Amino acid sequence: MLKLKAKLLGIDAFVETVAVLSDEDAKKLGVHPLERIVIRKGNEEVAAIVNVCKSNRRIKPGEIGIYQELEKLLKLKNGEILEVSRREELVSKIFIRKKLDGKELSYEEIYRIIDDTVKRKLSTLSLSALVIAYYVHGMSVKEAVYFSKAMVETGKRLELDERTVADKHSLGGIPGDKTSMLVVPIIASLGLKIPKTSSRAITDPAGTADRVEVLMPVSLGLDKMKKVVEATNGCLVWGGSLGLAPADDLIINIERPLSIDPFLLPSIMAKKYAVGATHVVLDLPVGPEAKLKDLEEAKKRFKQFWEIGKELKIKLDCVVTNAYQPLGTTVGPAIEAKEVLEVLMREKEVKDLEEKALIISAAILRLTKVVKSFKKAYKTAKEVLETGDAEKKFREIIHAQGGNPRIKPEKIKLGNVRIPYKAEKEGYVSVIHNSKIVRIGRIAGAPFDKGAGLKLYKKLGDYVEKGDVLFEVFTTKPKVKDVIKFLRMFEVYEISDKKPKLKPTVLKILRRSRWRKLF
Amino acid sequence: MLKLKAKLLGIDAFVETVAVLSDEDAKKLGVHPLERIVIRKGNEEVAAIVNVCKSNRRIKPGEIGIYQELEKLLKLKNGEILEVSRREELVSKIFIRKKLDGKELSYEEIYRIIDDTVKRKLSTLSLSALVIAYYVHGMSVKEAVYFSKAMVETGKRLELDERTVADKHSLGGIPGDKTSMLVVPIIASLGLKIPKTSSRAITDPAGTADRVEVLMPVSLGLDKMKKVVEATNGCLVWGGSLGLAPADDLIINIERPLSIDPFLLPSIMAKKYAVGATHVVLDLPVGPEAKLKDLEEAKKRFKQFWEIGKELKIKLDCVVTNAYQPLGTTVGPAIEAKEVLEVLMREKEVKDLEEKALIISAAILRLTKVVKSFKKAYKTAKEVLETGDAEKKFREIIHAQGGNPRIKPEKIKLGNVRIPYKAEKEGYVSVIHNSKIVRIGRIAGAPFDKGAGLKLYKKLGDYVEKGDVLFEVFTTKPKVKDVIKFLRMFEVYEISDKKPKLKPTVLKILRRSRWRKLF
Repeated sequence: MLKLKAKLLGIDAFVETVAVLSDEDAKKLGVHPLERIVIRKGNEEVAAIVNVCKSNRRIKPGEIGIYQELEKLLKLKNGEILEVSRREELVSKIFIRKKLDGKELSYEEIYRIIDDTVKRKLSTLSLSALVIAYYVHGMSVKEAVYFSKAMVETGKRLELDERTVADKHSLGGIPGDKTSMLVVPIIASLGLKIPKTSSRAITDPAGTADRVEVLMPVSLGLDKMKKVVEATNGCLVWGGSLGLAPADDLIINIERPLSIDPFLLPSIMAKKYAVGATHVVLDLPVGPEAKLKDLEEAKKRFKQFWEIGKELKIKLDCVVTNAYQPLGTTVGPAIEAKEVLEVLMREKEVKDLEEKALIISAAILRLTKVVKSFKKAYKTAKEVLETGDAEKKFREIIHAQGGNPRIKPEKIKLGNVRIPYKAEKEGYVSVIHNSKIVRIGRIAGAPFDKGAGLKLYKKLGDYVEKGDVLFEVFTTKPKVKDVIKFLRMFEVYEISDKKPKLKPTVLKILRRSRWRKLF
Repeated sequence: MLKLKAKLLGIDAFVETVAVLSDEDAKKLGVHPLERIVIRKGNEEVAAIVNVCKSNRRIKPGEIGIYQELEKLLKLKNGEILEVSRREELVSKIFIRKKLDGKELSYEEIYRIIDDTVKRKLSTLSLSALVIAYYVHGMSVKEAVYFSKAMVETGKRLELDERTVADKHSLGGIPGDKTSMLVVPIIASLGLKIPKTSSRAITDPAGTADRVEVLMPVSLGLDKMKKVVEATNGCLVWGGSLGLAPADDLIINIERPLSIDPFLLPSIMAKKYAVGATHVVLDLPVGPEAKLKDLEEAKKRFKQFWEIGKELKIKLDCVVTNAYQPLGTTVGPAIEAKEVLEVLMREKEVKDLEEKALIISAAILRLTKVVKSFKKAYKTAKEVLETGDAEKKFREIIHAQGGNPRIKPEKIKLGNVRIPYKAEKEGYVSVIHNSKIVRIGRIAGAPFDKGAGLKLYKKLGDYVEKGDVLFEVFTTKPKVKDVIKFLRMFEVYEISDKKPKLKPTVLKILRRSRWRKLF
């Protein structure tokens, strides 16, 4: 063990904890570049990746260079003295290897892996081996329950003094799906607690946290989040900043660049479990390019989620929705936030988006037994939207989270370069390729660049003339070349002579009480 | 694209290429921390991981901070102007995903992956996905041929003006296997070219490159290697510094921390192909803890190697050897180098080591048709060892590679802390757990710490009294605690009342001409 003086470098390597040692101190500790050390400050400890600096250059013996993530986690100041030691051999690496070989892991094994993940002791390589092992071999319901529990136990929990805590979540797969931003104010304005946490986009141009962040801070601490929910009944915050299931975010950071998500089930259920949700409505989008291809797959997923929910004492219904095209007319963090605001203010009518938000709200009202019949529940939700109560509640939440409650839609900043995509012939829009909409949004810079995205002028079934603008891409100068290259290469919309048959926005509601009818 | 001024940081992050941008320039380029940029200097380009520094702290706008690996690859100097741009989307990521889903890759797909690997464009995450995908799904002979060829085509080749170029390689799995260091001088002293390249240890305490490096530089350039072979007929160099199949070393750096090696076949064959080998003898160790468990597995491997060899026009025989215990009496880079020197000088007799080296040398002499009968070949090799010709040749090679040709065994430095491991009862040594010998060597600090390792005083079949020292561990102070903890926890030797039945050092020679007898 060495005592070293912190030297903050102000360098950002995203979620990676990096420390720079002089080669003299590295030798003393017996560590080499890219190995890990454990850094202790009082009772807190975090592991870090070692980089080594030639003696007497930037980092001198006795000093330790600190990257931003490490600075943040240990709340470090320049000159603080830290205890630094080699990371011991990790038994969790053996468990990961076991999974690579296709074996099921026990709760104890999973807990060790998740605990080492949170303490940053596992390397990126080991974590990627874990993620890929579950991608290849699949995750049992039992393992998903174990991961959910371990993720919650290695983090903080939201403790609300309520018997009923509602929540909703979407499995994703519909570009432009901003439903949560409508459901939360509707439900909250009816007196139910709904402490909604969201993740940032994994493979999409925008996650709900990315969208909400355009209007208000989403990186709240847990205490602040609790205050917001106690004051307004609801919130719209990023799950990653709360310390709720912190392992989840580190795992998502591995899944994202690999474009796979084997931890989907525990990832969602851990977040619900950690906020103390008692009733959850899950949105399962189906479509040719969504994660779920058809109703049968959705039913299977419902069963898995329901079984995990049962173990965690969470009541759960599912809503199967239409993923054949983007929801609403916008894709991208800022442009979607703008659309939500316009809908709440009744300045704009966006039928599919509103319909979906009302059905999910109604499903929550029925599951929690606030309203008994679905029909009545739907009517109740609709009134709240139309009277402006939902807008009022939304602005209350913006205010409580520290945003500007008087924000006007036209003040929201979008990418300053606009690239139109035009119809090459006349006819009906018969196919919109979601995966290409997603790729364009990503290439345009979303979700990191909040102003990047798409505005759709035509949707499925619309009749278009040759030369009509189908959609516009919002981006910035460095990305223009890539966007144009992509648009030239791929067909994003298909136009046909025949008007296509359209599916409803919500296809089915799956409930446990209807189990026998389902399977 | 931006033109930025290099600022060498002198920070070592092992093989990772890292560059630090000011947040202003990162924004201009549209890149975020942990994304990759491409850095151009003249005709050369290398990709690097982006770290971002708050403006006007250590890295100012217009500057780019350069880590050591990047400095080395582009031969950079302070103040040089570099062209920096975002890395374009990689099509090779799609091919890796395809493999994750269990599909076979084509040559074009594999070539793109390997080319992007060499240019550092693929992230560690993507490379680990590749390695793990092949670990889980396995690699076909066809894919192994493609990887071998792609690895050679994206690097340099050794061009010797010779019709016959011999080589040998071991699949590994025997701790302390230093056979190459005897075979090369024996074969070279008989007039055959043997340009031996070796890798560093992946999961073992010492690879041949680690051992040889104790006596002479092993990181030679290709031109220097060629000169050494032309002058002495042989060499003992590290494959990684030559630019021969450079992708292989980057892949090994992923395999090493994960303790898996799905790229074993192309990894070995690419290195043989790149030095222009025409005749190769492969050593396939079998034993309960080796990669190959029995003769049947060895035959299967022989067939795979032979088939790859056929495509690459390399003639190949295999020697199946005994992996039931370490070879010789030493494990660890320095202590093994010392033993080799003592054997060549005939100061010490190490029966199993000498027997194995002579049989492999004889197999090479027969495969290349230098000597027709195996018996005669064996006798020839033995004479060379006993007359001291092999030692003379070895010292010639040390000299040619830039080491001290007059080096004495007693001058070789070992770890300064010695920890004895004693017998707890009397009897015959009946089992030596190789995997535990390996773990101890690693925990003691090998292969990074060259002086770390083990000296075995007793081997299989030896009779011991209670309290006899079975082996000693050589290590340094920071590792002592971990070594003792391990020794207390595990049984490394088993002692029994009955004398065990011993297997010969070499179990079988596999030849294509005997194919029908084999399968």
